[in-house]
Amino acid sequence: MSRPLEGLRVVEFASFVAGPSAGMTLAQLGADVIRVDPLGGNSDYRRWPVDTGSDNSLYWNSLNRGKRTVAVDVRSPEGQELVLALATAPGPDAGIFADNNVGRPWLSHDALAARRPDMITVHFEGHADGRGAVDYTVNTEVGVPDLTGPPETAPVNHVLPAWDIIAGQSLATAVLAAVYRRARTGEGSRVNIALADVAAAWVANLGWLTEVSQRGDRERHGNYMYGSFGVDAVTADGGRLYLVALTPRQWKNLTETTGTTAVFAALAESLGTDFFTDEGRYTHREAVAAIIRPWFAQRTMAEAKTALDAGGVLWGPYQTMRGFTEKFQADPTSAPVLVDLDQPGIGTVISSSAPIRVDEHYTGAAPAHVLGADTDEVLASVLGLSDAELGKLHDAGTI
Amino acid sequence: MSRPLEGLRVVEFASFVAGPSAGMTLAQLGADVIRVDPLGGNSDYRRWPVDTGSDNSLYWNSLNRGKRTVAVDVRSPEGQELVLALATAPGPDAGIFADNNVGRPWLSHDALAARRPDMITVHFEGHADGRGAVDYTVNTEVGVPDLTGPPETAPVNHVLPAWDIIAGQSLATAVLAAVYRRARTGEGSRVNIALADVAAAWVANLGWLTEVSQRGDRERHGNYMYGSFGVDAVTADGGRLYLVALTPRQWKNLTETTGTTAVFAALAESLGTDFFTDEGRYTHREAVAAIIRPWFAQRTMAEAKTALDAGGVLWGPYQTMRGFTEKFQADPTSAPVLVDLDQPGIGTVISSSAPIRVDEHYTGAAPAHVLGADTDEVLASVLGLSDAELGKLHDAGTI
Repeated sequence: MSRPLEGLRVVEFASFVAGPSAGMTLAQLGADVIRVDPLGGNSDYRRWPVDTGSDNSLYWNSLNRGKRTVAVDVRSPEGQELVLALATAPGPDAGIFADNNVGRPWLSHDALAARRPDMITVHFEGHADGRGAVDYTVNTEVGVPDLTGPPETAPVNHVLPAWDIIAGQSLATAVLAAVYRRARTGEGSRVNIALADVAAAWVANLGWLTEVSQRGDRERHGNYMYGSFGVDAVTADGGRLYLVALTPRQWKNLTETTGTTAVFAALAESLGTDFFTDEGRYTHREAVAAIIRPWFAQRTMAEAKTALDAGGVLWGPYQTMRGFTEKFQADPTSAPVLVDLDQPGIGTVISSSAPIRVDEHYTGAAPAHVLGADTDEVLASVLGLSDAELGKLHDAGTI
Repeated sequence: MSRPLEGLRVVEFASFVAGPSAGMTLAQLGADVIRVDPLGGNSDYRRWPVDTGSDNSLYWNSLNRGKRTVAVDVRSPEGQELVLALATAPGPDAGIFADNNVGRPWLSHDALAARRPDMITVHFEGHADGRGAVDYTVNTEVGVPDLTGPPETAPVNHVLPAWDIIAGQSLATAVLAAVYRRARTGEGSRVNIALADVAAAWVANLGWLTEVSQRGDRERHGNYMYGSFGVDAVTADGGRLYLVALTPRQWKNLTETTGTTAVFAALAESLGTDFFTDEGRYTHREAVAAIIRPWFAQRTMAEAKTALDAGGVLWGPYQTMRGFTEKFQADPTSAPVLVDLDQPGIGTVISSSAPIRVDEHYTGAAPAHVLGADTDEVLASVLGLSDAELGKLHDAGTI
C-alpha cells in the first residue's frame, strides 16, 4: 500500500515546532522531506525535554522523525549554494521549500524563484510585518490566558503550544494546496504564514471576537465549558473526571445516569428555563454542577465509570501524563496511535504515528536521523555530486 | 490571481469545530465546498456564542463561511440518495467527502466507494475504536490540564478547543494528501482521524510522553515556560506582559535591556550555572524572574514597551480579548488577518482571512450562506436536476 505523498519532495530549513512539525507530518504521509541544518544544529537542537541518559533532545528527535538530514555551513557561499540547489532541484514533485528563517535574504522566495520559476515556498514568521513572536506571546496578545483558569487567579497561560501546532498543520495544508495549483496551472506559489495571524484568525473563527465586541469579555470560569455544559467532578476516592453535555441526547443520558432527571425537570419549571438548550445549561451551570456532583462524591471512580459508560454519558478522566503513559505501556491498545520506537542516540521512546489513518492503517513511526547523517547521500542522489566533490566540501568544512 | 484550490470540490457533512473548520480552510483557499445539513440544521447550528440581536450562532456562521449549503431530509431514502449522488459526483477534482457522522451506515466509505471506486473519504471520530470523545475529554485524558495553571490550583482546562482546531487542520492536510495520491495513481483513499489520536500524537510528538516515563510528571508551574525561560511580569501601572528568552541572543537582549547582565554573570558564577543555556534559565527560573521583575514594577507599560522594543526583547502584552478586538477596530493594521464582514442574518462581524497568505495576498472573508440557501442551485448544477424534479423534492419535503 502506498502512502499518499510518496513521490513528493520537500526541503525544510526550520526550527522549533511549527516548521519541523509540518515537515514531520508530510514525511509521515510518505513525502521525502530533506531537512537542512547549519553545522552543529539549529537553535532548537538542544530544546527540552532532553533524554536523561544522553542529554539529546527528545523534542528535536521527535519533531524530525522520518526526514533525511543535511548539515552544511550556511555562512559560506559554497554551503548556501548547496541549499539553493537542493531547494530548487528539478522534477515536477520537487521545488518545494519550507522555512522560518530570519535574516537570510539569500534564501528568499525571490532568490529561489530566480532559479526555478515554479518554485513553491512556504515561509513561517512571527508577525506578518516581520516582528518576532512565539506561541506564548501571540497567546497573551489575543487574550486567551485572560479567559483561562479559575476566577480568583491571574491570567493562566495554557502549556500546550497550541498555536505552533495549529500553524504547523496549516503549513502542511498550504504546501499541498500549492502543489495542487502547480499541478493544474504550472504556477509556483509564495506562501507566508504568520503565527500572530494564526492566533487572531482562530479566535475570530470561533466567533469570539464578535462576541466580545457585543457582550464584553467573557467571565473567566475555570473548568466550565463555555456556552453549553461541561464541568469537572470528584469521586469518593479522589478521582477527577470531566462531564460533557453538548447535545440534548447527552444531557438526557447524564441526568438519567445520575438520577437527576426529575430534579432538573422541576428546576426548569421553577427557573423558567430549558436545560435541553445550550443556553439553559450554560446560564445555570453552577446549579447544574451542584446538583450533579454529589452523585460522584458517593461513588468510586470505578463505579462511576461503569455507570457512565452504561448510560452513554460523554465523559473523560483527568489523568496525569504519567498515568496516561503508564496505561499505554500496560495496554498499547489504549492509545493505538502511539508507538514504541528505537531512536538512535536515545533508546526506546514513546513515539507516534500520524493521527491520520489511511486505508485503516496507522503510519507507524520512523526515527530521526542523526544530524547531518544523510548529507553525502542526499548531495549525491539529488545533486549528482561525485565522491571527489563531496571530499572537497568535507575538506573545506562546508559539510 | 487564482486561489490555489480553485477547481477542487469537497462535500462536507460535519458538525462542531474540526470538520467544519477543515472545510472552511479549503474554501478559503479556493475549493468549492458543499456543506450538507439535515433540514433545520445539524446539532451545532445554534452553538454559542450567539449574536445578541438575532440569536443566530456566531460560531456556526463563522465556521461555515464561503461554503455552499444544501439542506435535505437525511432520514428519507430520497434525501440520502441526494447526499450520495453529490458526494460521488463525477470529475477528477470531485469525489471527496468529509464527515463526522455517527450511526449513518448509508454514508460509509464502502457505500460511497461502491458508487465511485476512487472515492476519497475523510472521517473524523472521537476514539479510533468508535467511542465518543470531544476536545475537553481527550484533553483531560492525555494529562494536559494536570500541567496547566498555578501549583496551588486543581488541574486547569485550557479554554481554547486546541485539539479540535488541530484536528481540523489535519483533516485539510489529509484531504489534499489523498487528492495528490489520486492524481498520481488513480487510487481513492479512506482516511480516518480520531480526536483522541490527535491529542495523544501531539503530546508524544513534543517528547512529553518519553519525558514523563523518564522523569515522572512535570511540576505544574503556572506561567513559566517549560524547559527554557518565559515568565509574566507586572508594570507599575498594572500592565502584564510575557517575556521570552528561548535563544542566547534573546537572553542577552533581555538582560541588557533590564540592566541585569552583571547580576546574572555574578549569579551564574555563584551557582555554577550558565544562563545562556535552556537548562540554566529553566532550572533557576524563579531566581531569574525575581531579578527581572523589579525593572517592570518601576516602569509603566508604555515605558517598558519602548525599552523592550528598542532592545530587541521578545515579549507580548497580556490583553483581554476585548482589548485585542478594540485595538483592531481602532487600527485594522494591528491584526491584518482580521476582516470586518457583513454576515447576512447577523450584521457586521469580526471575521478573518485564512492565516495562509498566497503570493502576498490575504484571502479575505466570504460570509456563510443561510442554511440550505444553495440547495436548488447545487442540485441543478452538480446533479443536473430539472426545475420539475426540484419541485417534486420540495413538495415531498425532501429539500
